[in-house]
Amino acid sequence: MRRRILTGVLFGLAMLAPGLAHADIDVDTKVALDTLWVLVAGFLVFWMNAGFAMLESGLCQAKNAVNILAKNFIVFAASSISFWVVGFGLMFGDGTPFVGLSGFLLGGADNSPAMGDAYAGVFGSLSWTGVPLYAKFFFQLVFAATAATIVSGVVAERIKFGSFVLFSFVLVAFIYPIGGHWIWGGGWLGSMGMLDFAGSTVVHSVGGWAALAGVLLLGPRAGKYRSDGSVRPIPGHNMSSATLGTLILWLGWFGFNPGSTMAADPGAIASIALNTNMAAAAGCLAATVTAWLLLGKPDLSMILNGTLAGLVAITAPCSNVTLGSSVVIGLIAGVLVVYAVLFFDRIRIDDPVGALSVHLVNGVFGTLAVGLFDAGGGGLFFGGGIEKTMTQVIGIAAVGALTFFLSLAVWFLLKVTVGIRVTPDEESEGLDIGEHGIEAYPGFQTHQEMGSAVR
Amino acid sequence: MRRRILTGVLFGLAMLAPGLAHADIDVDTKVALDTLWVLVAGFLVFWMNAGFAMLESGLCQAKNAVNILAKNFIVFAASSISFWVVGFGLMFGDGTPFVGLSGFLLGGADNSPAMGDAYAGVFGSLSWTGVPLYAKFFFQLVFAATAATIVSGVVAERIKFGSFVLFSFVLVAFIYPIGGHWIWGGGWLGSMGMLDFAGSTVVHSVGGWAALAGVLLLGPRAGKYRSDGSVRPIPGHNMSSATLGTLILWLGWFGFNPGSTMAADPGAIASIALNTNMAAAAGCLAATVTAWLLLGKPDLSMILNGTLAGLVAITAPCSNVTLGSSVVIGLIAGVLVVYAVLFFDRIRIDDPVGALSVHLVNGVFGTLAVGLFDAGGGGLFFGGGIEKTMTQVIGIAAVGALTFFLSLAVWFLLKVTVGIRVTPDEESEGLDIGEHGIEAYPGFQTHQEMGSAVR
Amino acid sequence: MRRRILTGVLFGLAMLAPGLAHADIDVDTKVALDTLWVLVAGFLVFWMNAGFAMLESGLCQAKNAVNILAKNFIVFAASSISFWVVGFGLMFGDGTPFVGLSGFLLGGADNSPAMGDAYAGVFGSLSWTGVPLYAKFFFQLVFAATAATIVSGVVAERIKFGSFVLFSFVLVAFIYPIGGHWIWGGGWLGSMGMLDFAGSTVVHSVGGWAALAGVLLLGPRAGKYRSDGSVRPIPGHNMSSATLGTLILWLGWFGFNPGSTMAADPGAIASIALNTNMAAAAGCLAATVTAWLLLGKPDLSMILNGTLAGLVAITAPCSNVTLGSSVVIGLIAGVLVVYAVLFFDRIRIDDPVGALSVHLVNGVFGTLAVGLFDAGGGGLFFGGGIEKTMTQVIGIAAVGALTFFLSLAVWFLLKVTVGIRVTPDEESEGLDIGEHGIEAYPGFQTHQEMGSAVR
Repeated sequence: MRRRILTGVLFGLAMLAPGLAHADIDVDTKVALDTLWVLVAGFLVFWMNAGFAMLESGLCQAKNAVNILAKNFIVFAASSISFWVVGFGLMFGDGTPFVGLSGFLLGGADNSPAMGDAYAGVFGSLSWTGVPLYAKFFFQLVFAATAATIVSGVVAERIKFGSFVLFSFVLVAFIYPIGGHWIWGGGWLGSMGMLDFAGSTVVHSVGGWAALAGVLLLGPRAGKYRSDGSVRPIPGHNMSSATLGTLILWLGWFGFNPGSTMAADPGAIASIALNTNMAAAAGCLAATVTAWLLLGKPDLSMILNGTLAGLVAITAPCSNVTLGSSVVIGLIAGVLVVYAVLFFDRIRIDDPVGALSVHLVNGVFGTLAVGLFDAGGGGLFFGGGIEKTMTQVIGIAAVGALTFFLSLAVWFLLKVTVGIRVTPDEESEGLDIGEHGIEAYPGFQTHQEMGSAVR
Repeated sequence: MRRRILTGVLFGLAMLAPGLAHADIDVDTKVALDTLWVLVAGFLVFWMNAGFAMLESGLCQAKNAVNILAKNFIVFAASSISFWVVGFGLMFGDGTPFVGLSGFLLGGADNSPAMGDAYAGVFGSLSWTGVPLYAKFFFQLVFAATAATIVSGVVAERIKFGSFVLFSFVLVAFIYPIGGHWIWGGGWLGSMGMLDFAGSTVVHSVGGWAALAGVLLLGPRAGKYRSDGSVRPIPGHNMSSATLGTLILWLGWFGFNPGSTMAADPGAIASIALNTNMAAAAGCLAATVTAWLLLGKPDLSMILNGTLAGLVAITAPCSNVTLGSSVVIGLIAGVLVVYAVLFFDRIRIDDPVGALSVHLVNGVFGTLAVGLFDAGGGGLFFGGGIEKTMTQVIGIAAVGALTFFLSLAVWFLLKVTVGIRVTPDEESEGLDIGEHGIEAYPGFQTHQEMGSAVR
Repeated sequence: MRRRILTGVLFGLAMLAPGLAHADIDVDTKVALDTLWVLVAGFLVFWMNAGFAMLESGLCQAKNAVNILAKNFIVFAASSISFWVVGFGLMFGDGTPFVGLSGFLLGGADNSPAMGDAYAGVFGSLSWTGVPLYAKFFFQLVFAATAATIVSGVVAERIKFGSFVLFSFVLVAFIYPIGGHWIWGGGWLGSMGMLDFAGSTVVHSVGGWAALAGVLLLGPRAGKYRSDGSVRPIPGHNMSSATLGTLILWLGWFGFNPGSTMAADPGAIASIALNTNMAAAAGCLAATVTAWLLLGKPDLSMILNGTLAGLVAITAPCSNVTLGSSVVIGLIAGVLVVYAVLFFDRIRIDDPVGALSVHLVNGVFGTLAVGLFDAGGGGLFFGGGIEKTMTQVIGIAAVGALTFFLSLAVWFLLKVTVGIRVTPDEESEGLDIGEHGIEAYPGFQTHQEMGSAVR
């Protein structure tokens, strides 16, 4: 349960920032402050859509850029509608430990910003935060859309546009909310004590599992894995976009993590913001060094993905760990991501942008890290036993299995009905012409046009 | 009058978010909260300059990119000076129902953040908000500059740089403020009860009317309309920029609309932010489907413009309508914009970026939508009569006529003196060389250089 | 001392915004408000990393874009670690008038957000602001990283990646903090009365001096200065990126300057935000006109650098000057930057992006401007004597000499050990291949590949 998490946070931060007490802030002021914070944080998370669009399109080929941009753009619009109609109710509506059953279309009783015992309404699982319902929904919506956006990068450069949009609708309407209900919506994993403060599992690994299911049915891009066993590098077409995208994501994470307090609690938000930043920095440096040692050069795409790995890994534990632990978590994430990228290529799972290595691998690691580094007493490395970590493992496995198999079923249905992969000709020519009828950069001379598509 | 609008808002939201009451927030806290909100919202609106720069340059040709970037950049600087010296006084200074006559150079008495009856100063029309004068000015400045930026896209790829800068000065110093005074500055339209919460008319359609006047005197780009009656598509050179620009604008609108409360009222800002988002999402999806059906492909520029259409349309009614109505307004806007783009091409009005379809057509529609969908009782579809809608029609027509004819006069004066159109040679070669002496992408091989300017 | 500065601010603004008094805001509310503001402002300053990355890469050649992006990206990660471990303690830790000697790794006692006399801890120099320690650190960190980023642009297109990263570590760990301690950390310059509100000297000119030392040892890019005495223009490869970067920086400055209040004081932050904006606008217009007159065309890179010049120049005086003075300061900065760019080329100091002209020249000018335009009584042009200006001159010279000579020593050490310049072959081929093994835009045909590297 989120409420339990927050108690953990406050406990943890009481240590870090002595002397803070909020008893004196009157209720109306607190509602205004908290709403301001939640909305601003939500705007930052919304902004991550631009980050994913720039990063993913930059790391793919120019001939598919319009397609990737269009996918990343429309996925937020589609999520807005499907999360409003169905998803939010399934995730946060009152219901069973397995699924929410009320609050569809934001209907049903709700007296937010009343909170705690004073709350009366159908979204009891969000009664720990004292902001208007529409602010709660907006903040959760921008999270939901992130999960769908993660999928976009993994299946890039060969997925049919229509099929991707359909899958996104289903993911945000049904699959994401059910996993989310288990942990954040009053479900059985939260009741067991599983902690995932800002969503290493709820958002990131869920996006990764859904993508993994898709890519298994979709197969690698044509020519990626040669018959002699070697891997053909397909470099991204615009590293300027990719770098900008990563900086947008880093900025957005200052909404993602500290905003998940859903309250302008000064000690908590300052501490979470700094933990988030230090894990990102450590991930960046660790990936740089690892790539330099392994590959001989400080590869920019590894530098970028190392940063994102640190950010994903700190997402679950950001509220419960010390600054030093955040740096350690970031360092591990930065090493992990480089090896994961190499690993997925070895087993011939073709992920053009490295999103599985970033979001799935480090989403799992970050969720585990809560069990290992929790400074509130329960962490394995901080005087606690193995129990907390085992709870995290159960949560990771349960939500992973749920998401992977439901996604596999949906991808399979799409494959046997409308199809999920473009034709070989379209893939070779580029999806921009085939799916959208326009090019991303029509004024420029490309190598493909010069008869040297493969350099 | 804005004060009247705000009362409407608070009334409307009392329904939506029961239990909020601000009586207990002490005055100094409220001033600090409101100022924080107004400034952050103003920063987001400022950021829209980057959105327009990226969108408009991306949707034009590479050979004119420097020119468009320079225009979009300098227009905010020019607006800052002209709105400070003249515009703000004409718009919000005390005066007649037709024009403000005091407060030039931000001079004159003003005891902000004192508000309501306690206010004493020359900007009585802004006494409904309790923030320092400089915060009021900053927030209104970023709005004023938006109107001028809208013009930039419509006249792109053939306007003289100097003439555009001159027109922008005049627009922001005189034309925009007079229309704004009528609605927001204590003028006759506000007194009549016209409502335009965040400026579908004050900002967006005004930008559109000013641009329409310019484009009528300027004519289409060379080669756009062939003698056989067909239209030559001139694709934008960088869809990555255009997509980024649209996401910047969507983000900026979270300042534009919710910030127009000019107060950190939690129920109001959460509701307005969500209404804004849902209209954008609906506009995006509606334009995607409409373009897919009409043109055979989900054209990315239509996806982007559909989103912007939804945002423009919800700008006036965002504070007075339900969430469901916001979705409907967005859907209509998304359909409208696709047909409008085709319509303007049919009547041979050449608008390279679709800004007339987005800002003029949907600015008018959004202003009308207040009359149709007002949930506070007066909306035609919500139990009210036709009266409210008629008031909106009068406001649309009056401000439209004012802006169009004043702009036409200024454009005409420029045309017969310094000239408004570059030479045919310069247009063919690109404005970047002719107007600025540099290229946007000098390292890259373009098709134009390869002897195939027209593909 | 910063506290003294702030008193000056409040004094100055009492004039500008009568009627504001904060006695009534209770302590906990004020801590929450101030923390919210400091974090949001810090996020905006963080965002400037993207601005520098886009601006600097855009103003350089495509073949070096990956290298510049990687440098700008990793410099923030490196700074995060080195400022945490060493820099923050040297700058703000209690110690001598010349250097801080406590608080490394954020260790040591600290009861923030307690402030003033109630503060007990090792960071006494920051006890004038009432936010948690982690918020103080985060805000100061994003400032420190800015100084290092400024260096990046000046040494671009020929510096070794590893050497740059090493220099950045040292700059942010040792050099920047010592100069900062003198002015902001309780050191001798602050005690003398030197004023530098948001860091024209502490951040901007320090970055400039460090870069100047480097560039003297590094030399110009190959082919930049011809043997006949003429200068070969090497145009930036992507003016779209450069424009976006400048708009990001302008936005970021709304965190940089108003955020330096480190308190959500409504009168102060509104006034500082507006002063900042007007100086930027005036700098933009002045540079446009100056470039137009001197060079015959309104060069876009001058328009952009003029804006940045205005922003740098207003950074020190933004809290102590009137709106009119801000415009004047911006105008002077905009003229200065154009002449400075021409001057550095004349003395054959090769600065690919104009960062010395922007940050060094206008950092010095802005610091001087405090002495000239201070509206609180002490400004030379506002009824004060020469004394205040002389104090500023001493501060500029002292921090300049400290930074320049320490940096020169570090650069020299790097030069004679690992080397600081890439080989002529690598410089000709581009640093992207040599240092990173990838290209920024591998899909595109460039002029270099066509056998026409120099156009």
